[in-house]
Amino acid sequence: MDLMYEGKAKQVFRTDAPDEVLISFKDDATAFNGVKKDNIKGKGRVNLAFTRYFFELLSNAGVKTHIVSFIDDISMRAKLVEIVQLEVVVRNYAAGSICKRTNFKKGEKFEQPLLEFFFKDDALGDPLITEEEALEKKLATKEEIEKIKEMTLKVNDVISKEVAKSGVILVDFKLEFGRDKNGEILLADEMSPDTCRFWDAKTMESLDKDVYREDKGDLVESYTKLAQILGVKL
Amino acid sequence: MDLMYEGKAKQVFRTDAPDEVLISFKDDATAFNGVKKDNIKGKGRVNLAFTRYFFELLSNAGVKTHIVSFIDDISMRAKLVEIVQLEVVVRNYAAGSICKRTNFKKGEKFEQPLLEFFFKDDALGDPLITEEEALEKKLATKEEIEKIKEMTLKVNDVISKEVAKSGVILVDFKLEFGRDKNGEILLADEMSPDTCRFWDAKTMESLDKDVYREDKGDLVESYTKLAQILGVKL
Repeated sequence: MDLMYEGKAKQVFRTDAPDEVLISFKDDATAFNGVKKDNIKGKGRVNLAFTRYFFELLSNAGVKTHIVSFIDDISMRAKLVEIVQLEVVVRNYAAGSICKRTNFKKGEKFEQPLLEFFFKDDALGDPLITEEEALEKKLATKEEIEKIKEMTLKVNDVISKEVAKSGVILVDFKLEFGRDKNGEILLADEMSPDTCRFWDAKTMESLDKDVYREDKGDLVESYTKLAQILGVKL
Repeated sequence: MDLMYEGKAKQVFRTDAPDEVLISFKDDATAFNGVKKDNIKGKGRVNLAFTRYFFELLSNAGVKTHIVSFIDDISMRAKLVEIVQLEVVVRNYAAGSICKRTNFKKGEKFEQPLLEFFFKDDALGDPLITEEEALEKKLATKEEIEKIKEMTLKVNDVISKEVAKSGVILVDFKLEFGRDKNGEILLADEMSPDTCRFWDAKTMESLDKDVYREDKGDLVESYTKLAQILGVKL
């Protein structure tokens, strides 16, 4: 197959359809902008299963995604999109970079979900960017930004409520969006414990990539535990 | 006199009136969050003269400031305010930290003035902060933030137009605000070539603290040149 693009955790291949791609989840784990790297057997398969689970929930709730179909246990077919160069983060509780940047205390619950944009630029370390700056850089139009914010808050609402049923807290997450050939904004990329923080509401145990970032245990074991709690089929 | 507070560039003293303070401008220059430091004779006097000039223009344009009166060539009497822990920055052209953070090209003119908030916290290096984060930290209320934005854009409008008459570009500036005893938001601190970037519109020469930051010449000489161009009495 013809590889179009290879990222830290996925490969994107051309397909026979000009407006569709095949996305394959790799077993590579990275953290701290690629400074920490490992190959962890089974990670790609688990993350695809979570992405399928979350994106199906979202699609049923009316959030348009790039997914066309699921091919095998590490691959999905998706619409070819032009990725918006913004990482969109929602935080319900303080964790990760926001604690270092502005000294919120880890675990602090926010009164309102905080939505932040980061400029997707590895060389700059994906810096925080204001909406006004994103507009000046023409990363998206005003209308696209409004649409992205609306979709992101909907994702937060749907997934927070769903995982809460199983006693899990959606702490924060990162989304990416793309424009399809008609210019429509679609939820793209993935949604998995690689891109979300999940805490067991009783024990506050991390069931996400912080297990890997902070060397707190076996990543696939933690992700599998989360899948069992949420009823995600692996 | 009874020193209440000493900052990098100013001292604040109590007065006989409980709701008024005396602010004295020091000759100290600092840059890069205090990493570079010098004592530059005459700097305090020149910055007070600029602050007087700009704050009088702003007061005439309806922007409420903390100034009560000017005492001597380095001191002013001001209302005692509780400083809002936000630095408010407006950028008309790209320069300084925004170029490093999000690689705007120095000198690039923005389509709209960009307004940014920074969390006043030396230990954290005054990080960029979103409005939502500032609200969560209770640095200001929603109403105060709206008032601060409105006043800041008014300052930009008034000062940009005034200096443009003399062939000078207001590139960017930093403001601080305070609450008086009635809770009213007042423009506080100072406005000078220490807190603003000014470029000669023809030569693009810096007439501000970048002369000191970048070792491009004598600070007081450059500030004096700007004063002459703008007609600021020293």
